[in-house]
Amino acid sequence: MASGTQPAGRPAPAAGGDPAADLRARIVLSWLVEPGHRIIHSLVERYSATAVLDFARAGDLPEPRLRESVAARLRAADPDRVADAALAGAARLGADVLTPGDDAWPAALDDLRHLESTARDGNTRPPLLLWVRGEAPRTLLGGAGVAVVGARACSPYGSHVATDLGYGLAERGWTVVSGGAFGIDAAAHRGALTAGGATVAVLACGVDRPYPSGNASLFERILATGLLVSEWPPGAAPHRHRFLVRNRVIAALAAGTVVVEASPRSGALATLRRAAALGRVAMAVPGPVTAATSTGCHLALREEPGARLVARAADVIEEVGRWGADLAPLPRGRETVLDRLPPDAAAVLEVVPPSRPAAADAVSGAAGLPVRTVLRVLPLLVDLDLVRAVDGGYVLGPRRP
Amino acid sequence: MASGTQPAGRPAPAAGGDPAADLRARIVLSWLVEPGHRIIHSLVERYSATAVLDFARAGDLPEPRLRESVAARLRAADPDRVADAALAGAARLGADVLTPGDDAWPAALDDLRHLESTARDGNTRPPLLLWVRGEAPRTLLGGAGVAVVGARACSPYGSHVATDLGYGLAERGWTVVSGGAFGIDAAAHRGALTAGGATVAVLACGVDRPYPSGNASLFERILATGLLVSEWPPGAAPHRHRFLVRNRVIAALAAGTVVVEASPRSGALATLRRAAALGRVAMAVPGPVTAATSTGCHLALREEPGARLVARAADVIEEVGRWGADLAPLPRGRETVLDRLPPDAAAVLEVVPPSRPAAADAVSGAAGLPVRTVLRVLPLLVDLDLVRAVDGGYVLGPRRP
Repeated sequence: MASGTQPAGRPAPAAGGDPAADLRARIVLSWLVEPGHRIIHSLVERYSATAVLDFARAGDLPEPRLRESVAARLRAADPDRVADAALAGAARLGADVLTPGDDAWPAALDDLRHLESTARDGNTRPPLLLWVRGEAPRTLLGGAGVAVVGARACSPYGSHVATDLGYGLAERGWTVVSGGAFGIDAAAHRGALTAGGATVAVLACGVDRPYPSGNASLFERILATGLLVSEWPPGAAPHRHRFLVRNRVIAALAAGTVVVEASPRSGALATLRRAAALGRVAMAVPGPVTAATSTGCHLALREEPGARLVARAADVIEEVGRWGADLAPLPRGRETVLDRLPPDAAAVLEVVPPSRPAAADAVSGAAGLPVRTVLRVLPLLVDLDLVRAVDGGYVLGPRRP
Repeated sequence: MASGTQPAGRPAPAAGGDPAADLRARIVLSWLVEPGHRIIHSLVERYSATAVLDFARAGDLPEPRLRESVAARLRAADPDRVADAALAGAARLGADVLTPGDDAWPAALDDLRHLESTARDGNTRPPLLLWVRGEAPRTLLGGAGVAVVGARACSPYGSHVATDLGYGLAERGWTVVSGGAFGIDAAAHRGALTAGGATVAVLACGVDRPYPSGNASLFERILATGLLVSEWPPGAAPHRHRFLVRNRVIAALAAGTVVVEASPRSGALATLRRAAALGRVAMAVPGPVTAATSTGCHLALREEPGARLVARAADVIEEVGRWGADLAPLPRGRETVLDRLPPDAAAVLEVVPPSRPAAADAVSGAAGLPVRTVLRVLPLLVDLDLVRAVDGGYVLGPRRP
């Protein structure tokens, strides 16, 4: 629950601020205006949530559009009953509500304060609060997380890769952050859960009714070891635009965002761009260039400055992790005996004929090496079965390249 | 055949230089020491090929190893007979031998002069000569080319993508440059040939015996409209190390190199790194992260600074087009008037508008050239029907690029 402690770097709330009143005001404001609103967030930071709620009720908000939409909501329901219902619903679920004053509040979300809003998407300010449900400690939200996101309509390849990534990240102690959708989101959570890891699903609706219901058993598993998180109170419906608003929270919570599969117009790419704009690591998994499901990933890797290609969990951890400690080993082909041959021996091996034996001086001429060098390295090649000594010279042996 | 003309920026050959003697000396030197050798190339530039051959015969070369290997080769065969045999072989095939003095010598190869050699691979200097066989004009080598390279043991996916790329590049007038191997090389050539384009296969053996023989019918098709090229004389065998030496020629000839599929230890990746070191565009095609055949491409895209992901021919052309505005694509391998334009005229042609006439001073501003230069070259462009003079200025003409 909201504590009265004062987060560093934030202006002091109005004198005599009451934590319970602050919390109720934040709940009501999050219902009156969709989360992330630039003006509402600025006013709350400058005055306090209770003061801004008073402005709203008095019709004293700037901008006619904002005033009108708030007035319409106020006509539709009583704010006190909204707050009561939300808190009662959370209590029934064992859900908490966190506000920026709480110890468990993920400080990473405050970075959203500096995100440049665009005309198309102005709701990018930090949440006023978070509803949190699940058995994991709330501090999980402030821990080391990687967002794994992507298309709902993913391919079997994308599902496989997302599951693998989720597993690999959880196995190495990273929290997987994602939405709750079918496809990539669900696969990433499943992978992490299979590895015994904790995952965080950030929802665009109330934590009491995680959407889509087809993922109900997955949400049950997430609740058992991880967290469901939302800016919207219990009972809130997953309106379409809320997914885009929600995406900024996924991008901000995690140290980096991986897109596994996406179309060029996917919301997952919007999350990736948000992550990059927040100074987080933007990553994408490649796929066949012949698959429409990977075109968004390839687009991001071509066009998004700083976007990094990742092929496996170790790559992701290398990108988001501490340099050095988490450096991924370079994939290498199998080393063969040929790779370990001294240069002279390799040069001799090149010119030893496959069937008709050549004498040492013929080998010398062909290799461009002195005869004594050739005579020195031939026994090594014979020992390795790369060359066979026969009457009258040398031919390639049973372990020939 | 080698002419006696003096390329710009190169030191004068020894007084009394005889083109035929120079050519024979280059042939013998390319046989005495594997191509690209740092010392040999430096000496040839400083003195002349004939002088260096004299040094070699007299045992006067620096470094004991080089002296010894040259001595071993000289004991194995008579240099004059080597040169005679090579020239006779070329004559039988209708092959030419180009040297840096020739008009058709691809100037791009001279960039290899500045490539930093590594301890592991010191043979990175420009070729002393090129054997060229096929029906295409030799100037094709100096035109707009893209290298498409990759694994011999490619997947059906890689083969499909390489064919598509070869087709798309050829269709847009770019020459495909590659090796002659099975797998990606062959698929890229096939795609280009299917589009009616010209391709260049750079070999690690003589142009009389293109390797592997399993690609014989492909080589026949390349010969009909394109070129087979080699630093090694007719009769030379495809020794293993020669493929690595050869790769630098592929990288240098092309404006950019695309790796379609490769293992992490593939020679194709070495070509890519060479291309990057030469200031060419380094590109790789992604694939499923679950496919071993794409791990080298993903490695390059993660580790090679500046490596660009490409998913289709249009991406490749976007990348190499950015690289050099002066690289006018050769339509179907045929040389056009555009290739023979002086640089100033080409720069002016670039900025002449297609429909709304521009005055000479506007052209001057857009091209970044003095008005008097613009006024000097515009009549030439008008004569060539590339530009049309109209009331109030100049627009592109009927033979516009």
